[in-house]
Amino acid sequence: MSQGACSFCRDNAVYSREYEGVSFCSKCFRHAIEEKVRRTVVKHAMLSYDDHIAVAVSGGKDSLTLLNILVKLERRFPRSKLTAICVDEGIEGYRDEALDLASKECKRLKIKQTVVSYRDLFGTTTDEIVKRDLGKTPCSYCGVLRRKAINQAAAMIGATKIATGHNLDDEVQTVLLNMLHGDPVRILRSGPILRDVRGKFLPRIKPLCDIPEKEVVLYAHLNGLEFQSTSCPHGNEAVRNDLRAFLNQMDQKHPGTKFTLQRASEKLRELAANIAAPIELNACEKCGDPTPHQYCEGCLMIEAIAA
Amino acid sequence: MSQGACSFCRDNAVYSREYEGVSFCSKCFRHAIEEKVRRTVVKHAMLSYDDHIAVAVSGGKDSLTLLNILVKLERRFPRSKLTAICVDEGIEGYRDEALDLASKECKRLKIKQTVVSYRDLFGTTTDEIVKRDLGKTPCSYCGVLRRKAINQAAAMIGATKIATGHNLDDEVQTVLLNMLHGDPVRILRSGPILRDVRGKFLPRIKPLCDIPEKEVVLYAHLNGLEFQSTSCPHGNEAVRNDLRAFLNQMDQKHPGTKFTLQRASEKLRELAANIAAPIELNACEKCGDPTPHQYCEGCLMIEAIAA
Repeated sequence: MSQGACSFCRDNAVYSREYEGVSFCSKCFRHAIEEKVRRTVVKHAMLSYDDHIAVAVSGGKDSLTLLNILVKLERRFPRSKLTAICVDEGIEGYRDEALDLASKECKRLKIKQTVVSYRDLFGTTTDEIVKRDLGKTPCSYCGVLRRKAINQAAAMIGATKIATGHNLDDEVQTVLLNMLHGDPVRILRSGPILRDVRGKFLPRIKPLCDIPEKEVVLYAHLNGLEFQSTSCPHGNEAVRNDLRAFLNQMDQKHPGTKFTLQRASEKLRELAANIAAPIELNACEKCGDPTPHQYCEGCLMIEAIAA
Repeated sequence: MSQGACSFCRDNAVYSREYEGVSFCSKCFRHAIEEKVRRTVVKHAMLSYDDHIAVAVSGGKDSLTLLNILVKLERRFPRSKLTAICVDEGIEGYRDEALDLASKECKRLKIKQTVVSYRDLFGTTTDEIVKRDLGKTPCSYCGVLRRKAINQAAAMIGATKIATGHNLDDEVQTVLLNMLHGDPVRILRSGPILRDVRGKFLPRIKPLCDIPEKEVVLYAHLNGLEFQSTSCPHGNEAVRNDLRAFLNQMDQKHPGTKFTLQRASEKLRELAANIAAPIELNACEKCGDPTPHQYCEGCLMIEAIAA
C-alpha cells in the first residue's frame, strides 16, 4: 500500500503515523525516532554527561535498536561510556542464536560486551528450571533472574546506569497487567526511570518507553539490524498476549490510546510523589537490588531453586 | 447444563459462581446477593439508620434489583425512608416503556415515586438533543443531564442519600475507561460512595458495586422482576462495549479478574486519601452539584443547549 509522500521532505513515504497524522520517508522516520528517544531521555533526566551506561542487550529488536540509538546519542558526550550486557539464561537453540546476533552487533558498533550466565551466577539454567516444578511459570523465574543478572553485571563493570529496551507497548501492557492483578502500587513505583533516592542501587532507565513496538520493529528493519524474531520455546505469557491484542485493537480504533494510557500512569506517579508516606524501594539486605521488601524476589527464588 | 447441587443446602443448583467455586440454588443465590449488598453497604458506611434514600430507578435490571434489595434492607430500620426517582429523558418508544415498568414495580413494592423530566427541568429532551449537532455524543449529554435531574429530584424531596444501580461491571469498565482516556484522577474521586466532605451536596452510593452484571441479571430473573432489556435507540457506547467484551473475556479465562481490578481502584483511592493536597470535589457555584471545577458539566451543557 502506498503511503504517499513524506510530510517533512516530500520523498516517498514508508510509514504513516496515525496518531499524529503524518507520513515519513525512511530517513525522516529514523531521525524522528532518534529525536524522540533523545527527548524522552531529557524529559526524565535519564542520563548525565559522564554516565557509564550498561545496556541490556538480548539480541531482539528492542535492545538492538536501543543500543544503536544510544551509540548515536552518546557521541555528543565524550566523557560517557557504553557497555553491552548480555545474559545467557541457558535456553538451548534460542538464546545462543540471540547472543551471536548481539555479539555481531557489538563488534560492528565497537561496543564492549560483557556476557554473564545463569549457570555462573546462579548455578542453574532456565532449561533446568523448566524441568523442575517450582510452583511458578518459567517466565516468572527467568524474568526475575534476568534482571538480577543484569544488575550484577552492571555493578561488576562499574556502570552508573542500566538501560533496558522496554518500549511503549511493554510499558502500557504492564500498567494494565498491574491493574488487573489488583496491584496498582507497582505502577506507582516503576515507570520510565527507576531512581534510587538513597543511592543504594543502580538507576534503571527505559529510553524507548515512548516508542510504539511497531515503530521499533520498523526502525530496526530500516537500519538493517539483524535481530532475533523467534519467540522463546518456554515462553507462554498468555495474559500479556491478551493485553497486547486488546491494546492493539483499541489503538487501531482510537490511535493514540497507548499514549493516553501511558500518560495516565504518569499522572498517577505524579500524584504518588505527593503522598505523605512516599512509595520508595529498599535495597535487598542480601544483594542490594531494589525491592519493596527486606529481600528481593531474585534472592528468594535463588534460595528456592537451591533448596 | 446441569449445575449440580447447591453448595449450601444441596437443593438443585441454578448457578455456579466460578470465582469462588461454589454453586447456588435459587433461594441461596438470592440470599447471597442480598447479603453481599448488605456487606457492601456496611463496609463503605453507605447508609445511616435514618436516611431518606432517593433510589434512581430507570426500569432496567440494575435499578429494579437495587430497589428490591434496598426495600428488604430498609425493613430493619424503621426511621429510614425510600423514594424512587425516575427520570424521563424524552426518548420516545424507549423510556416510556421503562417508566411504565418502574411505576408498576414501585406500586407493587409500595414505594413512593417521583418522576422528573428533561422537558420540565431543562426545557429539552434527548430526542431533541440528538437532532441538533452539539459537538458531543448524545450519551454524553444524556448521562450528565440524567445525573443532574436525579440530584435535583433528590434535593426536591428532601433525600439525604442518592443510590444508583451501578454494578461491578459498570464500575470496572469505568476504571479502565478512565485509564485509557488518560484521566486516572477520576478513579480517585469516584468509587462505591461519593462523600461530600464539606456538606455541600448529597452523597451518592452504589450498593451493587460488588455484584457482577450477570449476577444482577440472574437475581432479577429469579425474582420475576419485569425489566426493560432493549437498548436505547440513541445509545452507541462503542468504547464501553469494547471494554465490556475485553473484561468478560479476561474474567472468563481468569475468574475474579473484575474483582481484582475493582480492588486495584480501591487501593488507588486509599493511597489518594494520603495525598498532601486531597482530591476533593467542589459544589457547583450555580447549582451545588459536585464538580472538580467552578461550574458542573451539567450547567455548562444546559447553557450550551440553550444557546
